[in-house]
Amino acid sequence: MPRSDHVQRRAQRCFMSQEVSRTTAASFRLHPGGSVTTPEGFRAAAVAAGLKPSGAADLALLYSTVPSVAAGVFTQSLIAAAPVRFCRAQLANTDRLVQAVLVNSGQANAATGSQGERDAQTSAETVAQLLGLEPSAVLLASTGVIGRRIPMDALLGALPKLVEQLSDEDAASNGGQRAARAIMTTDLVPKHIAGEAIMPDGRRICVGAMAKGSGMIHPNMATMLAFVTTDAQVGARTWQQLLSNAADCSFNQITVDGDTSTNDTLIGLANGAASVRISDDAHSAEYRMLDRLLTAVLQHCAKAIARDGEGATVLLEVRVSGAQNDADARKLARCVASSSLCKAAVFGRDPNWGRIAAALGRAGVSFDAAALDIALGPHRLMSKGQPLPYDAAAASSYMVEAAAAGKRPETYGTIADTVVFDICVGHGTGAGVAWGCDLSYDYVRINAEYTT
Amino acid sequence: MPRSDHVQRRAQRCFMSQEVSRTTAASFRLHPGGSVTTPEGFRAAAVAAGLKPSGAADLALLYSTVPSVAAGVFTQSLIAAAPVRFCRAQLANTDRLVQAVLVNSGQANAATGSQGERDAQTSAETVAQLLGLEPSAVLLASTGVIGRRIPMDALLGALPKLVEQLSDEDAASNGGQRAARAIMTTDLVPKHIAGEAIMPDGRRICVGAMAKGSGMIHPNMATMLAFVTTDAQVGARTWQQLLSNAADCSFNQITVDGDTSTNDTLIGLANGAASVRISDDAHSAEYRMLDRLLTAVLQHCAKAIARDGEGATVLLEVRVSGAQNDADARKLARCVASSSLCKAAVFGRDPNWGRIAAALGRAGVSFDAAALDIALGPHRLMSKGQPLPYDAAAASSYMVEAAAAGKRPETYGTIADTVVFDICVGHGTGAGVAWGCDLSYDYVRINAEYTT
Repeated sequence: MPRSDHVQRRAQRCFMSQEVSRTTAASFRLHPGGSVTTPEGFRAAAVAAGLKPSGAADLALLYSTVPSVAAGVFTQSLIAAAPVRFCRAQLANTDRLVQAVLVNSGQANAATGSQGERDAQTSAETVAQLLGLEPSAVLLASTGVIGRRIPMDALLGALPKLVEQLSDEDAASNGGQRAARAIMTTDLVPKHIAGEAIMPDGRRICVGAMAKGSGMIHPNMATMLAFVTTDAQVGARTWQQLLSNAADCSFNQITVDGDTSTNDTLIGLANGAASVRISDDAHSAEYRMLDRLLTAVLQHCAKAIARDGEGATVLLEVRVSGAQNDADARKLARCVASSSLCKAAVFGRDPNWGRIAAALGRAGVSFDAAALDIALGPHRLMSKGQPLPYDAAAASSYMVEAAAAGKRPETYGTIADTVVFDICVGHGTGAGVAWGCDLSYDYVRINAEYTT
Repeated sequence: MPRSDHVQRRAQRCFMSQEVSRTTAASFRLHPGGSVTTPEGFRAAAVAAGLKPSGAADLALLYSTVPSVAAGVFTQSLIAAAPVRFCRAQLANTDRLVQAVLVNSGQANAATGSQGERDAQTSAETVAQLLGLEPSAVLLASTGVIGRRIPMDALLGALPKLVEQLSDEDAASNGGQRAARAIMTTDLVPKHIAGEAIMPDGRRICVGAMAKGSGMIHPNMATMLAFVTTDAQVGARTWQQLLSNAADCSFNQITVDGDTSTNDTLIGLANGAASVRISDDAHSAEYRMLDRLLTAVLQHCAKAIARDGEGATVLLEVRVSGAQNDADARKLARCVASSSLCKAAVFGRDPNWGRIAAALGRAGVSFDAAALDIALGPHRLMSKGQPLPYDAAAASSYMVEAAAAGKRPETYGTIADTVVFDICVGHGTGAGVAWGCDLSYDYVRINAEYTT
């Protein structure tokens, strides 16, 4: 049974600003095969430096042929890793013009004290020297085991080869996809995408991204890392604002297990190579176009992380409308997506409106409980705060089918592989979406294994 | 390896105010066989009214032979059940003199709209009539399935027998233990205790309690309910203050899965039957004695709930000292005890200091990461923010042994069955404790079962 028309219309209007569906986004296109090197003037390389015991690629370099305006969003954890502190200092002290980002997997360089800070500094200086840059033009990110030092001989020894790859035209053009693999830890799939938008005057801009993360993982903790590039030309303050806003509607709205890493990092580079200047005016057509494209690209990466969550069998999308403002709606959505009980119910394919209502009730956000509507896909479970009669078997099948769609290549990554909860909490205009995954036996198995 | 002496001394001093060990509490004693009817002038009864499909006892009545001063602490959820709203109104509108509390298990009377409110009203009026009381002297609590009406014919039909039991001297004296069973839902064990304290002048006061809860459970959600009685004589405002403070150090510091019920209720009745007047002065010897006794009794019940958490194999105690204030310390302790990653690591018997540090870092509390000490039982894992070398096998065995102790009757419920994390976050005087349990396959199984 569909939701009432006016609620559906209102919800659609609310979500259009935050989430772009294929049908409404004729003005831009996403390319699943794209990556950070799809925008003009970006190159990437990846090598196996011997930082991962497996011998897989573990060191990636992202490079812009011209100075890029950089922006960053970092972990809120008080226990921030050395590369996070290094980036914060770089972005605070420089003109924010950056040309290279070095990323290693294998060791997180967290809880490594002043030695870890010196290692970060040395890594950046060596990369700068090899590329003929100022040290202030290099950023860093790490992911892997915490409390253990990066094997610096191995890292430094691999840098010349990494830089060399950048100058190899053929190798560097595929570097984006290889870099996306090199930053993986326990990720099951690499995560990358690009999108392009045509401006009103016919010129084109491109945004590319890669990300990694699937929970906080073996043997101590893991991390969400993401890197986004664009060939649009943007002022430093405006680029930071665009990046922060897009992060709020994407990476800050996913949850696998509620735990925040010491290393979480999102870095954006805008190099202006497409010669399309983005106005600082948030109401201009160019600004809005980049905003929507960037948000769509980051949402794609964020959903890919949630879908790849440890032990996940299905992606969970929680849409909240009718809140007093967007921040309230996002908080409500997050609270449902991160509730162990809601997640376990989805794993059990149990259309459990009670747990959804309970999670909303404890979110710390004010709303009218007597106006609460909850739908699971096409199934209305609750209206005006009261449970409705519904076809429990059909509602359960809806979740079974979404999980099955996630296992078929032709439907993986589409809305068909997603369990959608559609929640309306009142008559406000605030709307927000959060993504998560179900809580399975495998999550416990992965995280309870004796690892030290 | 023990922690350094000065840290140990400081932590001991901090925790003494909040948690009372056997050795330091010569001034009072706890009786594991005691219950809400152990204090003078309280009676209880329980019957099977047919509200639970199993046919087990499901209706309990707690009665004071004289008017009691009542206090309450209720769920913070916006979606509060009808009995919670009923109690809030009773405590707001009356002189807070109460003589009876009716508790049913089977149905939560939540998300039942105005019909649920009328049912609550009718239940209270009928109990009042049978006991010859004003309706304002009756409180209510419910636990069980939400969204379904209480079978009122069954409930009302069972009330005369319930009241009759109170007048049967023999039956009523054991009523406390029977009531503790009647309020259970998926609890594996009944939870009740009593304690007595000898005042400086030799007079005696007694506090008794019962509780239920083991997560949010089949088929929709469950609840934490607790009832505490005392024969001390206390003013209404002071009694509420004592109850709220004790709840902050006990029930508000336990977590099974981070989900808050619509029905969570703690009700306290003080009937003055022991003729020991408690001063309103928080510095008086009587006030402090009742404070410590009440807190110890509620902490016993709170730990019993965490130990009985869904799927739990071991009780987890997280002690935090050195924080800027007690509220910060309690928040840090809660964040560790509720982290899925920390809980899964304990299930895996993995001494994973990285997950502990990560949970502390994201708690939203300011502390000096470079001063962080973490110990697991006698094993020091981290000092001054840096990992220490430690015997991983011995640290793992410590957790294995605690779980085994929880399965032996002679050590169940003692500190031996508890995995203790001892954390120092700096040089402040704030301290706090939280309790939780590990995250096991059984938690997922229990909560993922298809139930509707």
